[in-house]
Amino acid sequence: MRKIRIGIVGYGNLGRGVELSIRQNPDIELVGIFTRRNPESINTINGVPIYMIDSAINMKDAIDVMILCGGSATDLIEQSPAFAASFNIVDSFDTHARIPEHFANVNKQAQRAGTVAIISAGWDPGLFSINRLYASAVLPVGNDYTFWGTGISQGHSDAIRRIEGVVDAKQYTIPVDETVAKVRAGKNFSNTAREKHTRECFVVAAESADLERIQSEIVNMPNYFSDYDTTVNFITKEELVSKHSGMPHGGFVLRNGTTGANAENNYIYEFSLKLDSNPEFTASILVAYARAAYKLSREGIKGAKTVLEIAPAYLSARPIQELIGELL
Amino acid sequence: MRKIRIGIVGYGNLGRGVELSIRQNPDIELVGIFTRRNPESINTINGVPIYMIDSAINMKDAIDVMILCGGSATDLIEQSPAFAASFNIVDSFDTHARIPEHFANVNKQAQRAGTVAIISAGWDPGLFSINRLYASAVLPVGNDYTFWGTGISQGHSDAIRRIEGVVDAKQYTIPVDETVAKVRAGKNFSNTAREKHTRECFVVAAESADLERIQSEIVNMPNYFSDYDTTVNFITKEELVSKHSGMPHGGFVLRNGTTGANAENNYIYEFSLKLDSNPEFTASILVAYARAAYKLSREGIKGAKTVLEIAPAYLSARPIQELIGELL
Repeated sequence: MRKIRIGIVGYGNLGRGVELSIRQNPDIELVGIFTRRNPESINTINGVPIYMIDSAINMKDAIDVMILCGGSATDLIEQSPAFAASFNIVDSFDTHARIPEHFANVNKQAQRAGTVAIISAGWDPGLFSINRLYASAVLPVGNDYTFWGTGISQGHSDAIRRIEGVVDAKQYTIPVDETVAKVRAGKNFSNTAREKHTRECFVVAAESADLERIQSEIVNMPNYFSDYDTTVNFITKEELVSKHSGMPHGGFVLRNGTTGANAENNYIYEFSLKLDSNPEFTASILVAYARAAYKLSREGIKGAKTVLEIAPAYLSARPIQELIGELL
Repeated sequence: MRKIRIGIVGYGNLGRGVELSIRQNPDIELVGIFTRRNPESINTINGVPIYMIDSAINMKDAIDVMILCGGSATDLIEQSPAFAASFNIVDSFDTHARIPEHFANVNKQAQRAGTVAIISAGWDPGLFSINRLYASAVLPVGNDYTFWGTGISQGHSDAIRRIEGVVDAKQYTIPVDETVAKVRAGKNFSNTAREKHTRECFVVAAESADLERIQSEIVNMPNYFSDYDTTVNFITKEELVSKHSGMPHGGFVLRNGTTGANAENNYIYEFSLKLDSNPEFTASILVAYARAAYKLSREGIKGAKTVLEIAPAYLSARPIQELIGELL
């Protein structure tokens, strides 16, 4: 059987993660990487050909699925519908509030072109969403909680970097252990932002900067920090690079529920991830859903799909009879 | 919209659990319970009509999905194919080694009759299987571990009860904490039965019984106990009833995996359940998959299906646009 032929659009951390992940999947091969940068300025891990993004359309017949690796806000919102007009695609669009709009835009192009477009296929949205769905379906009476971290939040780190006098910054989102323990013990709580997560910031300030002002601007920043207990640590550029260059993340989806004639029986459903590299894990998920997109397309399915609408078996390279016999 | 009409076949712990679960699902109603016992000898929780199992065929048009609540070994192996010849069905067939055979038998009848038959829809097989599949698809390089407990094993309890001089017994399967911690820390281990679980037995012996012989027969019993560290506690009938009448269970599916150019990044994928009532939770899952069977049937799908082949959204009563908007 011939391999599933993949193209990568965008070659940042996520695109490199997809390139690495494909090496772990013997049924999948990487055909090319498409970028807005000068192809000659880029060194790939495996020596895969690099093309200008505008030339992708010429490769229509050489690629089974395009994996879109740009950012949600400016790249995917435009690229996903555009590429779905010619290719089966997978993206990890993660702006939760705009997913219905993104779905509609992508679906329109995919329906017209007869392609399959799987959107928001990461871990949240993605694996976490799937678990929120299973949990609420099998425990209809109960409460859901999602905790994130310990991990770097790109959005919060960027918000700190925009403050005057800040040279660089990294922000960790950290679940509050006592609250996680409460949920695991089946106890409820008021579920405020402050009770669920703390925020820890590592900030490199300019030499003459007013540290007190920076600290105050951070902890009082609305939406990002004012609703949380936030710690600010000023460190050197060297320390930031040596200790905070990784991209760890993770989190939990928890549901506690009850059954019984008098709700006397309690249940804890828990799904958790602990990730050394957020982009490489998201990339691995994208590759598994690229396989699903390929299979769905071969079955004649078309249009936009989310992870909620795709049966688990589509993600696996193994035949269904083998999965039933060995894994069920 | 009219409700999904359910019949229950078999009214033991699992059947009663299904009856209770349906009360938590407003889109589903219970039409009747079918039993081999004398219907007049049974009191249901909600006063639902009870019928002789042989009369089920007369209710063909009044029931959308039959939920089969018998035991795997003697009931489901025959009832599931038989009922699939006339009804959409769901079962929780859990004899792992015989699933392919059961699938084939059920599929043959369901294909012929044009019904949908979802088999092995509990938590293991079931939700645990789904997680083993997702975990191996998104982390293709890694190792899987399934731990069960702390919980009552019916099969092991039964095995003890068959020993001469034993009046009654309950056996708890308990995951070894240190081994679970090793897996969570990304460390591998030799993965023997003894390293993963211990077995704790509570035994009521006949008055004149030789306790030493009973203890020795238990801990040396091949397949069931000889490969494990087993503790035997002799207790009174009263204590067994007061302290060990519950049916708790649960467990973990864990996968540790790596990504990166040199496998330098580590991941822990973990799914866990903690259940006060094993049968009531299994029943809740059966009800969610009954909804899926109904939806699949309405789409014109036929034949046997496993949980691996069913998209998560089929389990939910909520429309897909709402799931995408609120839960993805």
